[in-house]
Amino acid sequence: MYAYHCDKEDLLKRLKKIEGQIRGIQKMIEEDRYCVDILAQLAAVKAATNKVGLSLIDSHTKGCVSNAIKEGDGSKHIEELMEVIRVFTK
Amino acid sequence: MYAYHCDKEDLLKRLKKIEGQIRGIQKMIEEDRYCVDILAQLAAVKAATNKVGLSLIDSHTKGCVSNAIKEGDGSKHIEELMEVIRVFTK
Amino acid sequence: MYAYHCDKEDLLKRLKKIEGQIRGIQKMIEEDRYCVDILAQLAAVKAATNKVGLSLIDSHTKGCVSNAIKEGDGSKHIEELMEVIRVFTK
Amino acid sequence: MYAYHCDKEDLLKRLKKIEGQIRGIQKMIEEDRYCVDILAQLAAVKAATNKVGLSLIDSHTKGCVSNAIKEGDGSKHIEELMEVIRVFTK
Repeated sequence: MYAYHCDKEDLLKRLKKIEGQIRGIQKMIEEDRYCVDILAQLAAVKAATNKVGLSLIDSHTKGCVSNAIKEGDGSKHIEELMEVIRVFTK
Repeated sequence: MYAYHCDKEDLLKRLKKIEGQIRGIQKMIEEDRYCVDILAQLAAVKAATNKVGLSLIDSHTKGCVSNAIKEGDGSKHIEELMEVIRVFTK
Repeated sequence: MYAYHCDKEDLLKRLKKIEGQIRGIQKMIEEDRYCVDILAQLAAVKAATNKVGLSLIDSHTKGCVSNAIKEGDGSKHIEELMEVIRVFTK
Repeated sequence: MYAYHCDKEDLLKRLKKIEGQIRGIQKMIEEDRYCVDILAQLAAVKAATNKVGLSLIDSHTKGCVSNAIKEGDGSKHIEELMEVIRVFTK
């Protein structure tokens, strides 16, 4: 059982919204809309994806990582967390 | 008519793939999969969205912006391009 | 002669400031200051460096790239510009 | 006493190097070097600054944050850590 369970509904809602945005961008391309407007939507998707990632990192740290640290078994979890942060700050 | 027409099919294919990834992430959350695995998928979506954005910036520069510059009317288009790049480098 | 000449003084001033910030961070580390405060300074340096980069991309596009496009020789310059943007959006 | 003490020398060495790169970029501008070459150096500074930040986040998490969690006082430190990560992923 993982700590992100608590905001499962919220995460799913935000991902549903991102899915809708992606579909909207496809429609914009099919309708030959102006590139700059499409780029603005893509930037919004990138930012929203980043935000969902940060929420997950947050609940993962408060849940799994904190528990592991309390049980004296934090180092593997911290390494894993750092790897994820490294990928997200690129 | 905009310059990204040429790779419309390619852009749509990549966006379809991102849409599938987003749906996959929703399924992972519903199945209570490990946060770190979900985060890896989110980072992949972020990177793929960025790449689609760069492709659009590329064809927009080669098309609309280049044409405007040739016609002596580049400054507005360059301003717009810079604004888009600014948003994407954030 | 390159197009960024015009704001040479401004660029140098901003780089001098970043240099000062980097030295300030070294001092903070020597004085064992709190990591979170040091990280805030590092984030400021990262953002300031990004901004200087965007200014250079801007004047490069308005100068070298625009000139090359007008002379019918834009493609190599646009490729180069895209490569730089790619590195900065990572 | 903070946890980053251990790699103080390494951090200082890397910041000295970044300081040298910033000075090198100033010299390139004074010598009217090609914008694209200067941008490559700026991107290197941005990446190096990011890496120093990640190292600090790493040792901060292993030190201060882990200790606070063990002592049952982790929530404030985790909030602070998340805020720093948020700034760095922007």
